[in-house]
Amino acid sequence: MYEGKAKILYETDDPDLLRQVFKDAATAFDGIKKGTIRNKGIVNNRISVRLFTLLREHGIDSHFVRQLADNAMLVRRVAIVPVEVVVRNISTGSLCRRYGLAEGRTFAEPIVELYYKNDELHDPLMNDDHVLALQLASRAEIARMKTEARRINVILQEFFDARGIRLVDFKLEFGRYHGELLLADEISPDTCRFWEKENNRRLDKDRFRHDLGDVEQTYQEMLQRITEQS
Amino acid sequence: MYEGKAKILYETDDPDLLRQVFKDAATAFDGIKKGTIRNKGIVNNRISVRLFTLLREHGIDSHFVRQLADNAMLVRRVAIVPVEVVVRNISTGSLCRRYGLAEGRTFAEPIVELYYKNDELHDPLMNDDHVLALQLASRAEIARMKTEARRINVILQEFFDARGIRLVDFKLEFGRYHGELLLADEISPDTCRFWEKENNRRLDKDRFRHDLGDVEQTYQEMLQRITEQS
Repeated sequence: MYEGKAKILYETDDPDLLRQVFKDAATAFDGIKKGTIRNKGIVNNRISVRLFTLLREHGIDSHFVRQLADNAMLVRRVAIVPVEVVVRNISTGSLCRRYGLAEGRTFAEPIVELYYKNDELHDPLMNDDHVLALQLASRAEIARMKTEARRINVILQEFFDARGIRLVDFKLEFGRYHGELLLADEISPDTCRFWEKENNRRLDKDRFRHDLGDVEQTYQEMLQRITEQS
Repeated sequence: MYEGKAKILYETDDPDLLRQVFKDAATAFDGIKKGTIRNKGIVNNRISVRLFTLLREHGIDSHFVRQLADNAMLVRRVAIVPVEVVVRNISTGSLCRRYGLAEGRTFAEPIVELYYKNDELHDPLMNDDHVLALQLASRAEIARMKTEARRINVILQEFFDARGIRLVDFKLEFGRYHGELLLADEISPDTCRFWEKENNRRLDKDRFRHDLGDVEQTYQEMLQRITEQS
């Protein structure tokens, strides 16, 4: 039905449900860098299953229904809102370049950013007024996405902190489902930055982006650390 | 005391007051394009005097005290907040490029944008959370700047509409003065986009930016249209 950079969506017998299959393909820097991370599909699916389940236990619903296979989950068929919601707890990456910030600074309050999900325009940063002018979401939906993102941040930070990991930043997507706004997409080392608490060792896609080595092993390690202790 | 791209600030006998002198020098595209617009200093000073006076009549105070010369005004010595506030009523320029919008679309609600006033970083767009994280302004100051910008927009739109001109967009700067936030800088064809209502003829610095010709005459024309009927 739809193939993206990291996932494929297939129709099911139920028009309201899709099979979301995670790929091993990896891209970075706006699609310029391409590669494969062996077993990434399995890792990201299983991590997403764990984190969507965790969020559900904390009252945050999502498109996730249940795991179907090692690399696939059953999800509700949402219409994705073309606004990516990014939450940042620690300065790194594009934020440092854009505002001249030093790496690794912890913010007093998390920064929530909205980006226009548009490959051709290279996902530009936007504010609430831009989202409204482009009619990408309503004022209520924007408020809802931001509030949910901040709540999710609190839940995930606590979860990862207990596992010796700092949740540096992450990206969320939301979708409309029968008039309701639901968390969608995935939550994985592809969409989050994780740093080892003790030494800031990178435990996420930055290992692929910046050729830091041990990419595959690090994804496996994250899967273990996320699913082992629960 | 301080020389910027378009103005020079001189100290006066009163430590709270400065002499703001408008230059004929013009720059565009982040300082890459440089030139001179004859008598621009006079035009921009006199237009700013008129518009700051208009705003004061509508209850919006500013750093403006009184006109000192054709190209100079007396202003309060504010500490400029390094956040530029842009209000957009009609799509054009960088907004169209950034979000893939067609030129000349009138928005249902004006768009208010914040930019980090930082030449080295090329004045990047920011949201409220960025302003707070960089400690450029407090939450109350951000709210105040946005509210003032929207009020100013209403006042200026009405003023220009009566003169056959569409106020397309404009940039404001604010400064701190004895604990109070005041509108500062200038309001002129350098900092606003004006389009002739009938035919969208450009009546602002876009004539210089895009080599549309009649730059000097257009500045003079704007001065006449703004100061004649009052």
